[in-house]
Amino acid sequence: MARDISTDVVDRFIDIVGPANALTDPTDQTPYLVEWRDTYHGKTPAVLRPGTVDEVLAILKLANETGTAIVPQGGNTGLVGGQIPFETGAEIVVSLSRLNRVRDVDPQGNTMTVEAGVTLAACQEAADAVDRFFPLSLGSQGTCQIGGNISTNAGGTAVLAYGNTRELVLGLEVVLADGTVWNGLRGLRKDNTGYDLKDLFVGAEGTLGIVTAAVLKLFQKPRAVETAFIGLATPHQALDVLNRAQAAAGTALVSFELIPRILLQFCLDHLPGARDPLAGRHDWYVLAEMASGVDDGRIRATMEHVLMHAIEDGVAEDAVLAESGQQAADFWALRHAMSEIQKPEGGSIKHDVSVPVADVPAFLDKAIAAAVETVPGCRPVPFGHLGDGNIHFNISQPVGAGKADFLAEAERMNAVIHGIVTDFGGSISAEHGIGRLKRPLLPTVKSPVEMALMRTIKKALDPNGILNPGKLL
Amino acid sequence: MARDISTDVVDRFIDIVGPANALTDPTDQTPYLVEWRDTYHGKTPAVLRPGTVDEVLAILKLANETGTAIVPQGGNTGLVGGQIPFETGAEIVVSLSRLNRVRDVDPQGNTMTVEAGVTLAACQEAADAVDRFFPLSLGSQGTCQIGGNISTNAGGTAVLAYGNTRELVLGLEVVLADGTVWNGLRGLRKDNTGYDLKDLFVGAEGTLGIVTAAVLKLFQKPRAVETAFIGLATPHQALDVLNRAQAAAGTALVSFELIPRILLQFCLDHLPGARDPLAGRHDWYVLAEMASGVDDGRIRATMEHVLMHAIEDGVAEDAVLAESGQQAADFWALRHAMSEIQKPEGGSIKHDVSVPVADVPAFLDKAIAAAVETVPGCRPVPFGHLGDGNIHFNISQPVGAGKADFLAEAERMNAVIHGIVTDFGGSISAEHGIGRLKRPLLPTVKSPVEMALMRTIKKALDPNGILNPGKLL
Repeated sequence: MARDISTDVVDRFIDIVGPANALTDPTDQTPYLVEWRDTYHGKTPAVLRPGTVDEVLAILKLANETGTAIVPQGGNTGLVGGQIPFETGAEIVVSLSRLNRVRDVDPQGNTMTVEAGVTLAACQEAADAVDRFFPLSLGSQGTCQIGGNISTNAGGTAVLAYGNTRELVLGLEVVLADGTVWNGLRGLRKDNTGYDLKDLFVGAEGTLGIVTAAVLKLFQKPRAVETAFIGLATPHQALDVLNRAQAAAGTALVSFELIPRILLQFCLDHLPGARDPLAGRHDWYVLAEMASGVDDGRIRATMEHVLMHAIEDGVAEDAVLAESGQQAADFWALRHAMSEIQKPEGGSIKHDVSVPVADVPAFLDKAIAAAVETVPGCRPVPFGHLGDGNIHFNISQPVGAGKADFLAEAERMNAVIHGIVTDFGGSISAEHGIGRLKRPLLPTVKSPVEMALMRTIKKALDPNGILNPGKLL
Repeated sequence: MARDISTDVVDRFIDIVGPANALTDPTDQTPYLVEWRDTYHGKTPAVLRPGTVDEVLAILKLANETGTAIVPQGGNTGLVGGQIPFETGAEIVVSLSRLNRVRDVDPQGNTMTVEAGVTLAACQEAADAVDRFFPLSLGSQGTCQIGGNISTNAGGTAVLAYGNTRELVLGLEVVLADGTVWNGLRGLRKDNTGYDLKDLFVGAEGTLGIVTAAVLKLFQKPRAVETAFIGLATPHQALDVLNRAQAAAGTALVSFELIPRILLQFCLDHLPGARDPLAGRHDWYVLAEMASGVDDGRIRATMEHVLMHAIEDGVAEDAVLAESGQQAADFWALRHAMSEIQKPEGGSIKHDVSVPVADVPAFLDKAIAAAVETVPGCRPVPFGHLGDGNIHFNISQPVGAGKADFLAEAERMNAVIHGIVTDFGGSISAEHGIGRLKRPLLPTVKSPVEMALMRTIKKALDPNGILNPGKLL
């Protein structure tokens, strides 16, 4: 799909940002070309690092004129390869890292205007500095950038109370394929004047335009946070506790994370200083968090009420409520380690899927059985956001088996797991997006009508196909 | 814009639904052709009332083939004329009223699948029947239909806690301009597989496709609801109380409605049985509601805490907390009467605007002064959803002036008020949409880039321009 690119054209791109902000040396380029799970190694004549929106605009104007493919990139933490150029070397990478100004923070209006290259952690800090809260939270928050979070509609651990990134964005500034700028930086809570353009760019993975800035929602800071670690027999019980917690706490329930025993065991085995929060052994666990704007003991009483009745009714086996911020942090440290901690156990086949919340237990029953049937001895380690139906259905290799042998089964395993997901009306990419990795799967889960609709929109907004071609669609 | 339509083509449309479901008699047609504020009187050769999605599909196929303009219609309660055909008589009206099945209600998954013609009240009842809550609430809920609510992204009085209609829709079924059906009826909370098509149709006012069904979010029922009526000196104090209430209650604060004295007075003068909730007289009022999933007295304590401190700190002058459901209903009866109750006071010029929440008091100061300067003696009666920045900036005629004389000033007044709204970065249609009424204003508040983007999308999805032409864009 990518056309060749002449030295002359490359030089014109470099001129836009200046040689100091164009990386052409392979060593300098490496951090921009290698996907962090090492799945993709891209090639490019130049990584451009524009410092102004006008430079982004000039880049897209030239790209449109010359038919050059552009790969926009944030913090390069994406998991599906959307941010990495192909191996052809015919694409220009545009890193948004230098567009990193916090343009405005308005605690009265509870909004914040930030440029695409501001890291998620810096967004959180800017909110914190005015006694407000920006709830998006991810493992990679020190590195990932808000422009990337927006372009992938990132999820994270607080979706239950605050929604995905989409719900946190009020307005956008986007450079379009033809090099014009759409200024949609509005901080309004209600605005019914025309089509919802904003949400078209959120989650479009840089294929419809380049997000350069956004107006984000801010929230009152939680003043009381209660964190519980719950042991139970099956995901069915976990769903029961979820229903009780939501009935009692409503949107004060911020997180509800499901963890299998095997994954806690991985942490206990490999994570320095990890300790089992509970005395006994349980097949499944839930990490639950509730938060309140008032520190008057009420949210703790609510959490205690839920836990007490769940145990009394035989739904939960045991539970501990964090007695300090440190203890809560210890619980979360286990949860946050759970992606990385699968590495010492060998090869892993991963699926980022969602099903309707009420179907998660039935889905897990079927998918676990099917995985073990597909590769006998494999170890399913499904975990994640039960509260919004998003399970990271990962599978560790059989103990003692060869890593390569196991990974060779990935395609067969994917087909099995995604088939079950589809039977439940689920999604094969709940929060990571499509990118390059899952692009071949998209037509298998979308109807021809939906594929055609998406192609129509792509064609309308990027007629020359210069924006991240070969990704998503 | 509308092409002529031959009797032969009309007959083919009628054949699709059968003569019993095609209204051609002017008397039968009247309820479909007159806008309820009497602003528009449309004309059509036939009002079609399809009973199945297949019939809708056949109608659009034929419309696309013959280049016939189609006006989709729900409960005909829209306020900007989007649902009324033009006076040319060259458009076919498609009423969705007979597509009124509740297809599925899933209390475990907290979702409900309903067809476009289900009234909002029937949606609320279907949720209630399984002990769940559908929070969208409007004055016209007995008549308006969910398809219309979705196509206009309706707001209402619970946006603060639950969002606009957009936030309440998980999936859609849409018949596209070419007569194909997009089945996007998904009940997932997280799904990052491709472009966000759903939100393109929400609020598109029937110009991009006809919504035939939707998956809606359900919520736990509030078990405790506390309603307060607060008297205060200015909107600045009201904003202060809002900030305190949000800090204390977070999303448990469901409604925060601002009311000027004059509008309460209209109710006391014209609404049978209306009583002033407070003993003294105040220049402004707030109707505030908090709700909780647990009936343990806590949300009442929170409301009392906010009110007590607001009065102690001199921010509020007086407040009363409803002691019974009946008293709360009486407060709300005043609020719900406030649109209609302006009629006995003569002519009214209306604006449905929003500004950033923190700017509402400054906006009101400016807009009230400007209105009185524009038409001396006029009586501004701005009221509405302070919590989300959406004010219905209505202006009643001077006492004793001629109604027609006052209404003749509408265009001049609109320009003044919308100018101030625009200065605050606001919206000239916060919740009512654009339709026919505000279409001429759209290019005055949108950039050429944004207008071009919207036209590009319209052209891509409806190349023959058959879907509600002349509305919105």
